[in-house]
Amino acid sequence: MAQEIERKFLIDPDKLDDLNCGITIKQGYVPTSDNTAVRVRIMGDQAFLTLKGENRGAVRTEFEYEIPVSDAEQMLAELCSGPKVDKTRYLITHDKHLWELDIFAGDNLGLIVAEVELSSETEVVNLPDWVTHEVTGDPKYYNSNLLENPYSNWTDKKQKP
Amino acid sequence: MAQEIERKFLIDPDKLDDLNCGITIKQGYVPTSDNTAVRVRIMGDQAFLTLKGENRGAVRTEFEYEIPVSDAEQMLAELCSGPKVDKTRYLITHDKHLWELDIFAGDNLGLIVAEVELSSETEVVNLPDWVTHEVTGDPKYYNSNLLENPYSNWTDKKQKP
Repeated sequence: MAQEIERKFLIDPDKLDDLNCGITIKQGYVPTSDNTAVRVRIMGDQAFLTLKGENRGAVRTEFEYEIPVSDAEQMLAELCSGPKVDKTRYLITHDKHLWELDIFAGDNLGLIVAEVELSSETEVVNLPDWVTHEVTGDPKYYNSNLLENPYSNWTDKKQKP
Repeated sequence: MAQEIERKFLIDPDKLDDLNCGITIKQGYVPTSDNTAVRVRIMGDQAFLTLKGENRGAVRTEFEYEIPVSDAEQMLAELCSGPKVDKTRYLITHDKHLWELDIFAGDNLGLIVAEVELSSETEVVNLPDWVTHEVTGDPKYYNSNLLENPYSNWTDKKQKP
């Protein structure tokens, strides 16, 4: 078990430097009837099963286990009935913090989200100049919610297209 | 991944021989909105996270991973919001097949279910004389459903009390 403490931001892609090669992520969710997320993720040549509890501010209980890719493929096909999230992740180091930049594809094309993981809720982060709005804890940006209500449907896009 | 092929029966406890020592099982479920079950189980000093797909006859897709007991305890407390299943499992060998006999406690006190795992749906099983009714595929006997509608609420108990 881990407590996931992270802040999530929108960004201005025009201010980004060139990106290094990213890693392709495909993920789906077992349909749950509360705010627990049961996520199946294939990331490059690895796969993970992750359970996440409800957000309390920037803190979310997270349990993650590596599983065989073949299991994940079958789970995505048979147990994750809805659409899937496709995105490419780029890792960027800025002032001692590692940022994860997710560039979405498919129905969420145009959405780019940057996340930084913290060791405590009060840890100070020096924000890169490409960061624009903070969206930590906004359920609209949960990957699990981007399936039912993808970015292409939003009428209030804050991000540049 | 495995395909779980099993048949489930009610039994007549008066016909059972003395039981060997059983193993205590406590389990709960992450609330799902379809027939997928996300089960957290503590069995003796081990714990497992299991995803099960919908039943197709006696066949159910199952993915099971061993997880730390401390993770399972926290998941049961934080992610499995509903009541928990408590039962004691006894293993009985009968004519080359291993039977699992689950004696329920708590709200399901009085319910005893025997399951036998098969290598194919057509495999012949020599039923022990303590077996009474077959309940394979009856959703009422799914452990995940015994939480919302426990045996103590049933008006049509087939089993001896």
